[in-house]
Order: sequence, then structure tokens, then C-alpha cells
Amino acid sequence: MPATVQTKDYGTVVRERHSVRHYDPSVTIPRDELKEMLAEASLAPSSSNTQTWRFLVIDDPEAKQRLLPIANNQKQVVEAAATIAVLGDLNGYKEIGRINDMAVKAGYMPEDFAKQFTENSLKLYASLPPEKMRSIVQIDGGLVSMQFMLTAKSRGYDTVPMGGFNPQKLVEEFSIPDHLVPIMLIAVGKAATPGRLTARLPIDDITFWNSLNKS
Amino acid sequence: MPATVQTKDYGTVVRERHSVRHYDPSVTIPRDELKEMLAEASLAPSSSNTQTWRFLVIDDPEAKQRLLPIANNQKQVVEAAATIAVLGDLNGYKEIGRINDMAVKAGYMPEDFAKQFTENSLKLYASLPPEKMRSIVQIDGGLVSMQFMLTAKSRGYDTVPMGGFNPQKLVEEFSIPDHLVPIMLIAVGKAATPGRLTARLPIDDITFWNSLNKS
Repeated sequence: MPATVQTKDYGTVVRERHSVRHYDPSVTIPRDELKEMLAEASLAPSSSNTQTWRFLVIDDPEAKQRLLPIANNQKQVVEAAATIAVLGDLNGYKEIGRINDMAVKAGYMPEDFAKQFTENSLKLYASLPPEKMRSIVQIDGGLVSMQFMLTAKSRGYDTVPMGGFNPQKLVEEFSIPDHLVPIMLIAVGKAATPGRLTARLPIDDITFWNSLNKS
Repeated sequence: MPATVQTKDYGTVVRERHSVRHYDPSVTIPRDELKEMLAEASLAPSSSNTQTWRFLVIDDPEAKQRLLPIANNQKQVVEAAATIAVLGDLNGYKEIGRINDMAVKAGYMPEDFAKQFTENSLKLYASLPPEKMRSIVQIDGGLVSMQFMLTAKSRGYDTVPMGGFNPQKLVEEFSIPDHLVPIMLIAVGKAATPGRLTARLPIDDITFWNSLNKS
């Protein structure tokens, strides 16, 4: 587990996180710090703890230039310190045995339980239709992406999630194998201009109590 | 925006959140507090700020009993204070005009910009293939779900995300219309037994720098 870093109050982090589109291009983030942030993000929960998220970090100037047209020329991908392509591994469930073994070694899980859990999980995931597996990695990819954006903010960095990119071109340009599904791009760095504030739908309009019929 | 509540250090919240499967059945959460937590979760980012997440909160004992078999008889759905069915609205993008109008009124967005943004967004989302729209609401549903689980933890509550449920039966039992896609169930309450610790894959095994070829 990553070392604890003293950070801001949770409620402040959530309220201060805004999508930032203009970055200070002089700011870089050391790879060790990016790794710490990704490891903290990876403490997110996932389907049977399969952790199917994979991170392609684009922090090299030449690779950023290749990413630029793929990301609809949004200049944050060249100006931010890095852009993380969050990918979902459709074969990631095959790591479940290794993950459960780690849990046994750490004393988190009894050995018999782990063995049975691994066996059942491998059987279950192997039997899922491809679109169900895709849904799982997308939802879990959303979980880890949110935690990454908050973690970055808690350390004084800004982010913007981007769905506006060409996934086919990303796959081609970066030779991404078929089993890795692009989920989103997240630019991370220091804001040059603060993010725009945004409005939210009234919570009563999107919340239903025990029935979808508004009473 | 919900009022700020003094909560714990962000890094602590992230590290203390564990999936909890055994809840104290005597603990209830007032609906106003659940709404505050859902509103805070809804500060999450989303595709063009469309906020397609919808929350079906199941906190009534009779509705919990109906949910139990749908959720593979996992008893947290009856023992926890509430279970949130996070749904993704495939038609949710149609609220973009209203959302942008709210942003204009709040002074967050110039009127001309909002008009153009609304027009372009409506055209774009209406043209997407259904599976692309489904991916968007699932990923954004993951974002809001993660923020909800952290928000709950920051206020001393525990959660568990559940993918193990029967979405078709959920749809039938709660008369969920076709345009609302079940994303996950999240039980929320106070732990009776602490969550089990879990292992994580080494960060170097899931992180790649500018290329998927490990160098």
C-alpha cells in the first residue's frame, strides 16, 4: 500500500476538483510521483478485486505529439505534464489467482477460501459474454479514474477526463492489443487557468426512493 | 453545491475505504443525509457534463426484501441502511440544454457559448450508436459511484459495490424503463464487521510509459 501523504480534507478535495483544460507546460511530474498516484487510485474496488485497469502514461514530448490529433487536437495533451490512457483488460480476470495468492501471503484471506474463490471466479468470468466483460472493465475503469482525479487534486495537481478522442486511432498509433479497451484519457498537471465552474442537476430530479414513480 | 462538511484527510479516506459486507441493521441514515452524499457524489465530472447518473435508493424494509433475491441473497442489501441502484440514463443527454442554462444563470458560461454547446451536444449524442451511449453512461456511472463511496467513508459510513445481481430481474421488479441501464448496486451503512483487506497488483505490472512494450 502506498505511503500516506498528508493531504487536504476530503470535502475540500471534492469541491476543488474541476476539469482544467489549460496547463502550465513548464510543470513536469516525476514518474515516481505519478506511480504513487496511480497506486493510490488502484486502491479502488473492482469486480471480484480483478483490477482490470491498465495505465498507458504518455509523458514523452514525442508521444504527446502523436496523441494530439487522436485527442481531437485538445492541447491539454501536449501542455499537461502527462496524459493517462486508462485501459480495461478484457483478460485481466486471469490475474485473479495471483491476486488471491498475494492476499493469502499477506494474511488477508484463508488459503482454502482463496483456492475456491479463484476457481469459481475463473469459471465465471470465462463464461461471460464479451459485452458483459466490456461493461465490467468500463465501470471499474470509471471507479479507478475518479479516484485518480481526486488523488491528483489532493496533491495539488489538476486533471481533465477526456472521452473526446478516437479510440481506433489510439489503438493503432500505440499498438494497443485487442484485449485492452480504451476507457478514457486523463490529462494531469498544474492549471495555467482555473477550470470553469459547472452546474449540477437538482438532486431531487435524479434521486428516486424505492420506486421510479415520483410520489 | 452541497455545504462543506469537515471531514477526514483525503489520503486517510481512500486508505480506510474497504468493501464491507456485514452491517449493523439498527443503523439508519436520514434521507436528507443520503441526498447530501449523493449531491456531493454528483460533483463528479461526466461526458459534456451530461450527468446521466440516476439513483434509485432502496431504504424501505419491504423494498429491501424484494431486492434481496435479485442481489443473489447477499444480506447486506437488507442489513445496510440503504442500497443505491446506480442507473445510467441513455436519454440523459437531452438535459444538456437545461444544464447549460443553469450554468449561464450562475455566471459560469457565456450565453452564446452555451447555445452553441447545447446544439452541438444534442446533435452529437443523438448520432451515437447505442453501444457507445451505453459505454458513456457506464463509465460516468463508475465515476459517480467511486465518489459516492469515498464521500460515504468521509462521513463515517461504509459501502460495498455489487456487480453480482440480476439486472433483468431488477428492471422487472422495480419497473425500470428501458432507457435506464443498471450499473451497480452500492450498499451503505455502518459496518458490523470491518471489511477484509485486499491485495493489489504491483503498480509496475499495470503501468506502461509511452508504449505498451515493457522496456
